[in-house]
Amino acid sequence: MGSVWKNKLSLSIFGQSHGEAIGMMLDGLPAGEAIDMAELQQYLSRRAPGKFPWATPRKEDDVPEFLSGVVDGMTCGAPITAVIRNTNTISKDYSGLKDVPRPGHADYTAQVKYGGFQDVAGGGHFSGRLTAAFCIAGGICLQILQRRGVRVGGHVAAVGGEADTLFDPVNVQDFAKLDRMDFPVLDESAGARMVELIDLVRGEGDSVGGMVEVAVTGLPSGLGEPMFDGMENQIAKLAFAIPGVKGVEFGAGFEAAKKRGSENNDPFYYKNGQVLTKTNHHGGILGGITSGMPLVFRTAIKPTPSISVEQDSVSLSRGEAAKLAIKGRHDPCIVPRAVPCMVAVAAVAVLDAML
Amino acid sequence: MGSVWKNKLSLSIFGQSHGEAIGMMLDGLPAGEAIDMAELQQYLSRRAPGKFPWATPRKEDDVPEFLSGVVDGMTCGAPITAVIRNTNTISKDYSGLKDVPRPGHADYTAQVKYGGFQDVAGGGHFSGRLTAAFCIAGGICLQILQRRGVRVGGHVAAVGGEADTLFDPVNVQDFAKLDRMDFPVLDESAGARMVELIDLVRGEGDSVGGMVEVAVTGLPSGLGEPMFDGMENQIAKLAFAIPGVKGVEFGAGFEAAKKRGSENNDPFYYKNGQVLTKTNHHGGILGGITSGMPLVFRTAIKPTPSISVEQDSVSLSRGEAAKLAIKGRHDPCIVPRAVPCMVAVAAVAVLDAML
Amino acid sequence: MGSVWKNKLSLSIFGQSHGEAIGMMLDGLPAGEAIDMAELQQYLSRRAPGKFPWATPRKEDDVPEFLSGVVDGMTCGAPITAVIRNTNTISKDYSGLKDVPRPGHADYTAQVKYGGFQDVAGGGHFSGRLTAAFCIAGGICLQILQRRGVRVGGHVAAVGGEADTLFDPVNVQDFAKLDRMDFPVLDESAGARMVELIDLVRGEGDSVGGMVEVAVTGLPSGLGEPMFDGMENQIAKLAFAIPGVKGVEFGAGFEAAKKRGSENNDPFYYKNGQVLTKTNHHGGILGGITSGMPLVFRTAIKPTPSISVEQDSVSLSRGEAAKLAIKGRHDPCIVPRAVPCMVAVAAVAVLDAML
Amino acid sequence: MGSVWKNKLSLSIFGQSHGEAIGMMLDGLPAGEAIDMAELQQYLSRRAPGKFPWATPRKEDDVPEFLSGVVDGMTCGAPITAVIRNTNTISKDYSGLKDVPRPGHADYTAQVKYGGFQDVAGGGHFSGRLTAAFCIAGGICLQILQRRGVRVGGHVAAVGGEADTLFDPVNVQDFAKLDRMDFPVLDESAGARMVELIDLVRGEGDSVGGMVEVAVTGLPSGLGEPMFDGMENQIAKLAFAIPGVKGVEFGAGFEAAKKRGSENNDPFYYKNGQVLTKTNHHGGILGGITSGMPLVFRTAIKPTPSISVEQDSVSLSRGEAAKLAIKGRHDPCIVPRAVPCMVAVAAVAVLDAML
Repeated sequence: MGSVWKNKLSLSIFGQSHGEAIGMMLDGLPAGEAIDMAELQQYLSRRAPGKFPWATPRKEDDVPEFLSGVVDGMTCGAPITAVIRNTNTISKDYSGLKDVPRPGHADYTAQVKYGGFQDVAGGGHFSGRLTAAFCIAGGICLQILQRRGVRVGGHVAAVGGEADTLFDPVNVQDFAKLDRMDFPVLDESAGARMVELIDLVRGEGDSVGGMVEVAVTGLPSGLGEPMFDGMENQIAKLAFAIPGVKGVEFGAGFEAAKKRGSENNDPFYYKNGQVLTKTNHHGGILGGITSGMPLVFRTAIKPTPSISVEQDSVSLSRGEAAKLAIKGRHDPCIVPRAVPCMVAVAAVAVLDAML
Repeated sequence: MGSVWKNKLSLSIFGQSHGEAIGMMLDGLPAGEAIDMAELQQYLSRRAPGKFPWATPRKEDDVPEFLSGVVDGMTCGAPITAVIRNTNTISKDYSGLKDVPRPGHADYTAQVKYGGFQDVAGGGHFSGRLTAAFCIAGGICLQILQRRGVRVGGHVAAVGGEADTLFDPVNVQDFAKLDRMDFPVLDESAGARMVELIDLVRGEGDSVGGMVEVAVTGLPSGLGEPMFDGMENQIAKLAFAIPGVKGVEFGAGFEAAKKRGSENNDPFYYKNGQVLTKTNHHGGILGGITSGMPLVFRTAIKPTPSISVEQDSVSLSRGEAAKLAIKGRHDPCIVPRAVPCMVAVAAVAVLDAML
Repeated sequence: MGSVWKNKLSLSIFGQSHGEAIGMMLDGLPAGEAIDMAELQQYLSRRAPGKFPWATPRKEDDVPEFLSGVVDGMTCGAPITAVIRNTNTISKDYSGLKDVPRPGHADYTAQVKYGGFQDVAGGGHFSGRLTAAFCIAGGICLQILQRRGVRVGGHVAAVGGEADTLFDPVNVQDFAKLDRMDFPVLDESAGARMVELIDLVRGEGDSVGGMVEVAVTGLPSGLGEPMFDGMENQIAKLAFAIPGVKGVEFGAGFEAAKKRGSENNDPFYYKNGQVLTKTNHHGGILGGITSGMPLVFRTAIKPTPSISVEQDSVSLSRGEAAKLAIKGRHDPCIVPRAVPCMVAVAAVAVLDAML
Repeated sequence: MGSVWKNKLSLSIFGQSHGEAIGMMLDGLPAGEAIDMAELQQYLSRRAPGKFPWATPRKEDDVPEFLSGVVDGMTCGAPITAVIRNTNTISKDYSGLKDVPRPGHADYTAQVKYGGFQDVAGGGHFSGRLTAAFCIAGGICLQILQRRGVRVGGHVAAVGGEADTLFDPVNVQDFAKLDRMDFPVLDESAGARMVELIDLVRGEGDSVGGMVEVAVTGLPSGLGEPMFDGMENQIAKLAFAIPGVKGVEFGAGFEAAKKRGSENNDPFYYKNGQVLTKTNHHGGILGGITSGMPLVFRTAIKPTPSISVEQDSVSLSRGEAAKLAIKGRHDPCIVPRAVPCMVAVAAVAVLDAML
């Protein structure tokens, strides 16, 4: 039941990487919301692979087919279902993964949980490919949010040791430019160093992790519920649905742990009759509820576990050590592709809270 | 509805800091589980205030009264409800907080959300005091887990810039000693520096943040569901219910973002017929599902926003700037008291996954 | 986890008949709603036992203590918790019920489910006494609904073979009179016959079932969701939480099964610019969604299984047949007391849909 | 969000009658369960239209395409998604239904709820066609139940005033014969009278309602949770997702309302070391929990609202009375097709409780 999230919106995600199709069902949207398919496709292409020299060369068209919920380009109140066919799957024997699990992947835990019946091809239901389905939901929510004056944007905050500058959480930078960049960063020289690092790592058959930062602007105050259904709870729950995420922090996050109250507290003040805070260490959320300041969070993305250098593993059938060298080319760094995914996480959580 | 978490277990938390009582209802536990009330009380006392010179002097007895679900010291299958009376509340006028919200607190966001009807006394439903109710649930789950061979422990990983050593995630240290310590740390000299720092900060009328690390040992592999209901999703959702938490990370967490795949991947090997990993950067969770290695996570706790130094705020009634000096003594550092809370978070999430 | 209902509102019900207390937690209500405690008590007294010569003589005061969520008589946005102490429990040995289950009760199924750890005293968590907690939630919702122009009323539609007239579903009778009646019926001569029948049955140590009809007026159209979360689904799910309910029907209900479409379809017409239907076989719900016509449903209540005539049962310990004669006096007919319970069911479901 | 049901299993249903496709996603099934596609198709064909002279002549192939969750004919643990394309839709102008709503249909309530954006073609998301998707889920669950010794069967219990004999609730008749009948009844002469009645009604351009009875045998005792998540609550919640259902009753149901306790209580006895009841007025459920006796319930199905005789309605655009004559041929009686739907309801609810 883990693939269904039900709050005010419901999001159900299905599919395996090399199955017939992946897709999503999104229920609970208001009727009468226009969905601009070209804009959605544009957004989905930000997640699509194959754009960079370093990215996995598997071409995914990622053109969703809408099976329900949209009539004449408008939501009709019924659940929206969209599927993406898996056309580009290479028919090969993945059964070895059931025997020799890839370190860092879900191969082993899925084997334990599903007793060998899991679909291992391309990672099955655990594949990062499923995030394309998540992004369909996110892209739809984004368009609805935008009409309500809420904008969501993100950037590659770090790749390995190379860090971008962070958003100014009080005056978040404009997202338009970021949305157009293949490698969205605030500091382009940092971006260049990141790309260089990725290229280096790729040459070594290795991979590298990173960090994504997302901000939401134009938010009304008062969104979210106390205790278990605050904005942090909801965003975190959704963020960990994206493969590779190992941490999430809001506002000053782990830096807040080092601070004093007198530094970390954000003083209130009035501007044009509106209550704002001079700083924004709280990341736009106090007590789980939005303050009206930009909502800011960062997620840690682990390095892609698929690397071509030989690794130690085990043979489950023989009960002994085994070496593993993963064939094929894989993304040496999924962080840029994770940016639209994290934007989707925020868009779904925020729209849900606004309904 | 945010104060009810419903999965296989259901946890409902109620009460306001200075209302009649706080409490919790926990539904879904198996019948026939013994609850050792002395052991539970011992566990609750780890969260209780007033133990340290620096802690808030408000004495809370935190002795829960069980209203339902326990017969002759055993769970009977019906929901367990326990309440703690708020006996030690000082009758005073809190209405000022509705006018001049405390920076870093939920005063302002609650005002927006509840239109001035929220209970502001002592933080109302947003108070850290509510974590005593959470800990009742956690303490019960802990006892059940222990009988199934699962142990949960935690320590103060950092206070301000002073850091404890972290758990060895492959061979997690014994929890027994930590459980007995007033200020649970692995490195006692680091602990001494933290205590010194807290004392310093207290003298300045300030507060300081920190970090809590929790580990779960003896876990079976295969717990958790993919996508939205993985162990990371569940723990994160519960962790952000504890006031002051601004970040959560699993295993290598944000450090993983800096690593290469070849460093971060944890090689599998066999030991006594069991599949283990040589390192544990994955924190015991792969694809949301437990691997059988220790589950390890850390949370960032912001500095208590209640400080006695004067702060800038606003008067909502007058629509203008206002100064605020919070009276009374407050915890200069809630991190040691957050340790049993985070243990409770883990215990609830893990037992839920095991049912 | 069965004792928690979570939708837009969350309702958690706890307690065992002879435990410390029973109670409820209701989360998700808007802040700033006045709760008239005298009016609530008045409503609760409609469910209270001991009013009639034929009713169980156990006196329950049913005066709830509010532990949270209400400040100065107003909802504060935090969950509302109220408890009723079980003061009038007779300390006696109920352990026999674990051995010789009462026919028609949950004794046997609870024994199987909870392996003998269930609280059998007075029916434990399965007792009809728990409906007092449900009625606290219902009574609060009723007051809020009333301020929004929505009224909920009910009557004893039948006791055994004696039937009251049913509501005119197009012009539902005024509820004020029903609310004041100890034995609420539309046709008082039918009521007299019911009372006579109950008296007869009581004299024989037997019990008798019946039917409750509830109507909701002043409802806006458009409430409810399609498929699983329609008004019928929600009301039915809640109604079966009341012990003894074995059936629920909306509008023409089982009579509709006998009808032709041309009879059963309710023609639309305009009255004062509003769309109404000339008849109301649909019971105010089409496709799960309110039409604006009165919402009408009936529930079948089985005869109280507690009867003093000797019955056949088994001894679980000896694995053989056993005779059972239930001591003490019990309600020979719970139907009049079920009326406010069914009103509560409707009030919770309808207010939830309106939020 | 109404089209997603989330318990231990999750069932999401999507599609509009004349949209691209309808379908379902079922999550939470154990891995390694074989799905016999031929058997599933056979089951789906029991719901398919066009078999009878009286049935709607629209041919629906109802051959589901599985997009996910099934690998080599076995469940793989990932959510199962199946879609049925809507190939046989007649392209015509349905917009009139937005103006002149059909009495007894959801046209008007959908118009209010979705503000005119709803998909009206063929009933949109409210169409009975969606039950084909529900039956895919039901058919899968049935196969899994059968391997666990649980059988589910149903019959047409009544059409208009013509009634079939009911199941013997103590020794439920064999389902094999019912499963093979186009018009499943226990008493074939009653079946012949029903068919005759349907034919008569069809000739008059009218429709007729009826009743479906379902039984589940081979059930373990102890399934279901108290209060809100009992078997009755769950089955009722799911049953009302099937269009046209206006009532549900368990065991003696509404007849129990007329009975005395001494008649209605089912005495326990031992047979071959197993506790059984001599009668089964409780329909296999006591306190929401299965007793091990056959689970029996009946649902009332209203007459199809689509009739060709002229009806009174309104023109919403002109705000005045309007006549409506529904063109095309429609099912004069959906009751026989509702039988597999109610079997599906039971199968989903029971398997969910067994997980």
